[in-house]
Amino acid sequence: MSTIGNNIAVLGGGAWGLAIAKLLSENGNQVSLWEFNQAYVDLIKTTHTNPYLLKDIEIPESIMVTNEMEKALSINTEYIIFAIPSQFLRSSVIKASASIASLHNLKGIINVAKGVEEKTLKRMSEVISDELPLDLHDRIMTLSGPSHAEEVARKIPTAVVIAGKDDQLLQKVQQLFSNAYFRVYRSHDLIGVEIGGAVKNIISIAAGIIDGIGYGDNTKGALLTRGIVEIQRLGIALGANPETFLGLSGMGDLITTAISPHSRNRYVGYEIGKGRKLTDILSSMKAVAEGVVTTKSIFDLKSKYDIDMPITEQINAVLFFDKSPHEAMIQLMTRSLKEEN
Amino acid sequence: MSTIGNNIAVLGGGAWGLAIAKLLSENGNQVSLWEFNQAYVDLIKTTHTNPYLLKDIEIPESIMVTNEMEKALSINTEYIIFAIPSQFLRSSVIKASASIASLHNLKGIINVAKGVEEKTLKRMSEVISDELPLDLHDRIMTLSGPSHAEEVARKIPTAVVIAGKDDQLLQKVQQLFSNAYFRVYRSHDLIGVEIGGAVKNIISIAAGIIDGIGYGDNTKGALLTRGIVEIQRLGIALGANPETFLGLSGMGDLITTAISPHSRNRYVGYEIGKGRKLTDILSSMKAVAEGVVTTKSIFDLKSKYDIDMPITEQINAVLFFDKSPHEAMIQLMTRSLKEEN
Repeated sequence: MSTIGNNIAVLGGGAWGLAIAKLLSENGNQVSLWEFNQAYVDLIKTTHTNPYLLKDIEIPESIMVTNEMEKALSINTEYIIFAIPSQFLRSSVIKASASIASLHNLKGIINVAKGVEEKTLKRMSEVISDELPLDLHDRIMTLSGPSHAEEVARKIPTAVVIAGKDDQLLQKVQQLFSNAYFRVYRSHDLIGVEIGGAVKNIISIAAGIIDGIGYGDNTKGALLTRGIVEIQRLGIALGANPETFLGLSGMGDLITTAISPHSRNRYVGYEIGKGRKLTDILSSMKAVAEGVVTTKSIFDLKSKYDIDMPITEQINAVLFFDKSPHEAMIQLMTRSLKEEN
Repeated sequence: MSTIGNNIAVLGGGAWGLAIAKLLSENGNQVSLWEFNQAYVDLIKTTHTNPYLLKDIEIPESIMVTNEMEKALSINTEYIIFAIPSQFLRSSVIKASASIASLHNLKGIINVAKGVEEKTLKRMSEVISDELPLDLHDRIMTLSGPSHAEEVARKIPTAVVIAGKDDQLLQKVQQLFSNAYFRVYRSHDLIGVEIGGAVKNIISIAAGIIDGIGYGDNTKGALLTRGIVEIQRLGIALGANPETFLGLSGMGDLITTAISPHSRNRYVGYEIGKGRKLTDILSSMKAVAEGVVTTKSIFDLKSKYDIDMPITEQINAVLFFDKSPHEAMIQLMTRSLKEEN
């Protein structure tokens, strides 16, 4: 079913990094996993689990887990997966760059984070490009789509998109990841796939607020529909293909994040809708809710390009300016009556 | 907030007809309600509720409820709402046609059913047109979007679309329905709005099957994404605007139906996923699950126009040819790997 025996380094042992390492290992590849947190490395080495991140999931023993970047990136590494939270991606690429320069068999670099870097407002593949030599740039790809780690680890049927420039390389990566429960489509729209993945986390916070306040499925259907419109508006301004947002990495991921109990962004919104304060919520969470920082970055990006993004505006006001979530939702629902498009 | 004192006849006292009659009455209009079932008429007249269809909801006393069509359509009727299950719409329009011909103040006719007529394969507005004189055709509209009756009756924030040909009339209807919790957008794409509303019920059955089998939110996100693609494909063949399917009456309604515990179509799918037989499920339901008949009609329509609609094909096989739902879902997930668009 899958290509046999590729050498793959997964950098980042969060829930998604673990699920991907497990998937690739079970697909018959040799996988090494770099994790920053030594305690997590020890935990996986001794128990072959990380119950803090993936409950009741066994991490295959064949995966080589290490805290040392040079060990994870061996001379034979053919594919590198960056599974690093968006705001730590640049420093991790810098940390890996010397080792990467010495690799002779490197075929592809795959980002799986969803976000936009604060201050630079760059997409994840742009951040990676910034820190690596020019001849590698066309080999940088992003994998995105509706793919909660908890479900992929449990072999629940999942479909995602791999986006990049080189179609032959995309086909190889498609084979690398695909199996009976994990299906990968190809896309050439790196901008669209990355913007969709980032902004959906903001809409997901809004969806959580709706649930927290106690509104219904009618409200959520309307919110997600308007959400895709504003994601698409930003994407078009940045040069994306509008159709990408109707695919798995846009609408698909948005729906899954907005309905799933696994979604950390939806959870943050839910608690805010219930009346809790953001700092209080974040300090009680083990994993990163990308949508919070993303709201800041996308708010800056939409201001820079002067784009109308009402949901992002309201969530920004709720998260960082203490606006009442109830008030924000009412404002979203009562904008002046007009035609739909 | 709303136009005051219009004379409106709601034909059909199902859950949606009741919720609409209540909404329009509370917006300050004079509303009459025709219901076929005399027992329901008596129940509403005496208790001002219908707990079989809308639990814990009071039907305003000012609504005149009757089993006689001529009484519901008074000489002053300005708007008629057809809230009739799709397969009974034609006979109801025929029943009302003599009274309608005698109305002098009739401004608009609004269909709120979602389906396609069996055998003729006609949309709801086409069925109404068939049975009414030509000079009324431009006044026929369809209201659609993510709007579970149970939530509208509880004043949960909801946004929908009114589609038709005459923009001045659409603006009037927009005012008629709109209030603090119910928001109406206008559209000129009657075909797209009606096809989206009909086909989403099929995808909703598929979403229910996914839940019944025990698949996850990743699977559902992927399914709904591919669902919109096939709805759009059919719509384009029939002359719809592709963008309509990304709006409230397409994607919005699809999401709400596929996640809501109120959805009867999702319920049918859920029970099938659990292993129950269709006839057994349907015989235990009080309300109509439009998606079952719609699957038949849309399957015929897609065959007629030779359109690729894999989800509709699989659901048709599951519902009417006893195909295993598990097998159908696996086939949907494992189609050959390719590019997304």
